[in-house]
Amino acid sequence: MNRNIISILIVSLQIFSAEKANAQINVNEQRIQTRIDELARFGKDSLGRNNRIAFTKGDVEARSWYMDLMKKAGLEVSIDYAGNIIGKRKGKNALLKPIAFGSHIDMVPLGGNYDGCVGSIGALELITVLNENNITTVHPLELIIFANEEGGTVGSLALAGELTSAALAQNTNSGSTIGQGIKRIGGDPDRVKEVKLNRGDLAAFLELHIEQGGILEKEKIQIGIVEGIVGIKWWEITVQGFANHAGTTPMDMRKDALLAASRLVIAVNEAANSFEGKQVATVGKISTEPGAPNVIPGIVKMILEVRDLSSEKIESVFKRIQQKSDSIARSSGTTISFQEQNVNTKPALTDKTVQDAIMRVTTKLGYSVRYMQSGAGHDAQEMALICPVGMIFIPSIGGISHSPKEFSTSADMARGATVLLNTVLTLDRELK
Amino acid sequence: MNRNIISILIVSLQIFSAEKANAQINVNEQRIQTRIDELARFGKDSLGRNNRIAFTKGDVEARSWYMDLMKKAGLEVSIDYAGNIIGKRKGKNALLKPIAFGSHIDMVPLGGNYDGCVGSIGALELITVLNENNITTVHPLELIIFANEEGGTVGSLALAGELTSAALAQNTNSGSTIGQGIKRIGGDPDRVKEVKLNRGDLAAFLELHIEQGGILEKEKIQIGIVEGIVGIKWWEITVQGFANHAGTTPMDMRKDALLAASRLVIAVNEAANSFEGKQVATVGKISTEPGAPNVIPGIVKMILEVRDLSSEKIESVFKRIQQKSDSIARSSGTTISFQEQNVNTKPALTDKTVQDAIMRVTTKLGYSVRYMQSGAGHDAQEMALICPVGMIFIPSIGGISHSPKEFSTSADMARGATVLLNTVLTLDRELK
Repeated sequence: MNRNIISILIVSLQIFSAEKANAQINVNEQRIQTRIDELARFGKDSLGRNNRIAFTKGDVEARSWYMDLMKKAGLEVSIDYAGNIIGKRKGKNALLKPIAFGSHIDMVPLGGNYDGCVGSIGALELITVLNENNITTVHPLELIIFANEEGGTVGSLALAGELTSAALAQNTNSGSTIGQGIKRIGGDPDRVKEVKLNRGDLAAFLELHIEQGGILEKEKIQIGIVEGIVGIKWWEITVQGFANHAGTTPMDMRKDALLAASRLVIAVNEAANSFEGKQVATVGKISTEPGAPNVIPGIVKMILEVRDLSSEKIESVFKRIQQKSDSIARSSGTTISFQEQNVNTKPALTDKTVQDAIMRVTTKLGYSVRYMQSGAGHDAQEMALICPVGMIFIPSIGGISHSPKEFSTSADMARGATVLLNTVLTLDRELK
Repeated sequence: MNRNIISILIVSLQIFSAEKANAQINVNEQRIQTRIDELARFGKDSLGRNNRIAFTKGDVEARSWYMDLMKKAGLEVSIDYAGNIIGKRKGKNALLKPIAFGSHIDMVPLGGNYDGCVGSIGALELITVLNENNITTVHPLELIIFANEEGGTVGSLALAGELTSAALAQNTNSGSTIGQGIKRIGGDPDRVKEVKLNRGDLAAFLELHIEQGGILEKEKIQIGIVEGIVGIKWWEITVQGFANHAGTTPMDMRKDALLAASRLVIAVNEAANSFEGKQVATVGKISTEPGAPNVIPGIVKMILEVRDLSSEKIESVFKRIQQKSDSIARSSGTTISFQEQNVNTKPALTDKTVQDAIMRVTTKLGYSVRYMQSGAGHDAQEMALICPVGMIFIPSIGGISHSPKEFSTSADMARGATVLLNTVLTLDRELK
């Protein structure tokens, strides 16, 4: 055969292969649900509650169960020095960078069975379906289960080269430090620096996840395409008034720190609502000193959190809050100060090309879809430092997350896994 | 001598005696200050802080010191079953009921050296000055130092017959129960019921006290005549919203319990200010659940306190707050409930005749004076159940009380003791 004929044959085969993919490959909804239920059995505490905290016995057992499934699916499984589980599947072209996907199986204390799990089981389903359909992608594939996502995206931080020695010494909800925990799950805290990937080491990274909010369910939309993961910034607010006897101090002689703080909580809400966009601002924690019913509060401390896809927007919201605080302080005879906290993560944008691929796949599948932001942090955020990333959201019933009440339907999980699978196949065709 | 001549002679002697009193008797400002300073030395904790809590070693030692001074002043001193110290001084007419006066020498944890002490040292000064001037009143006199005022006006409650068995079993800041504490200071908890006085057993009761507020100082007025001691009522407020992820829940899908609670704190302030009068309403204590910076508060609990001289006014203020809470709950998607607490003391009015006597005495002395209410509770409140009561206030610098920073000048203390002394002498002449 001459070169032209070979080329034509290859193109034909590729078309045939693509058509075959579009025509035949389906995820197995029942298998996804069964595996979600099996995974949920790991990490129950003595009271039968969900406590599969990273580095605990439940986490170790669930990881072992998951790695068995990876091996049965033919993946070449290893644990890197940061404790990430990596499952490799060869592609036709070993020179291409791998397309990666995955999520996490650890949970917050008293957490739910869908956060991280849907993406992890969905990634496994992807491999299983490729196997069932005898499909070999052009790119190598990598399924990654990240170490300790809920304790601060530890595994993906390490891959991005951002896991510091100080972080390794931090205590975790498991009772051990991050360093000790990494050792317990098969990593090596002394060598975590070696897992660092450079920009371009992966062709792309995709994560399927539950929304953890109520937008998709409320709008009856099946798939969310994540435009980016919001940045988060915290400030401690101190309102200093004057503690005094609540019986003997007339209303017009008070410097009530809680009254001023209450006006500020309302100002925080108004500031967040005063801009176009999806920014959120929250006061979740408040305390008064001395905190007695018969003493006018002298000091109130609160934590202010602002999140948005744009760092500038976060600063704009904060500035508006600060401006309002000036007039509140003046009119109430208090002083109000803001102290930046250590929590200060930058927003991470997903890749336009990847977003576009997800949109085409979803539309072709006939699923309803919208763009949205992720208000919660994810490993994809750190992976964005390495390669183009994309995130696929499915509805969370009631918008509930980080709770045993967290729930997504098997139909939604299947749709999410189908979008993940077809997006990987699309990128496999389109990326170089 | 015939009867008429005898009558004229007696009246002349009384006039002479009264003139002598008006002309000569002065309290000793330096002696008052010295005794205040001596009393302040009792009840320091290991860190040198003021902790003369009722029933503790410091309280016992201070009481012993005080009783020595009473004895040196010629009083017949006893401790009743409730632990009250009673110092008796005979009058010319043993058939008349005693005129009583006094205060307390126990303090709140980390308290000040003037609350209670000024009235106690002022009462002792009264006796001392009568001795120095060889004055014998017509009525018998009783100087009362009440047991455990700060822990709930325990001694005066017992005199009013209102100290229950349940109260005796309550724990106190001293570490022991009220019953155990009463035993430690020389009382007998099994016999407290026997100390009960009936209405009319005393001709009157007077208490000199620091204002504990900032009104007198602000208005540059030397003496306050207390019209009444406010009633106090507490409610626990529960705001029930919905706890959710502060990152993934858009602003318009929140049921933020703290945002609603903040509106309510402002409504409490507005309700207290929306009536004529001196009523006060305070939220001194607040907590959020779960209380994490990255979770929208699901539940807020607060304590609402309302005080006024009129029970009806307290209810009116509360009803207005409740009305506002209905609209706040509706607009925020929360529910707000109010639970009455055990703290529910009735207002106590002082006696018009006694008020009038204090006013005449103060005016004659040339001191500036105003009527006012007491926002704090006092033993006089319980004594009002037994006899006509009056209270004399002197300025608190900065309006500060229940604090080591509590302070009144020796000149103000001397003026207060002078008013107390002359009011007792006036009532002695005028009461039957």
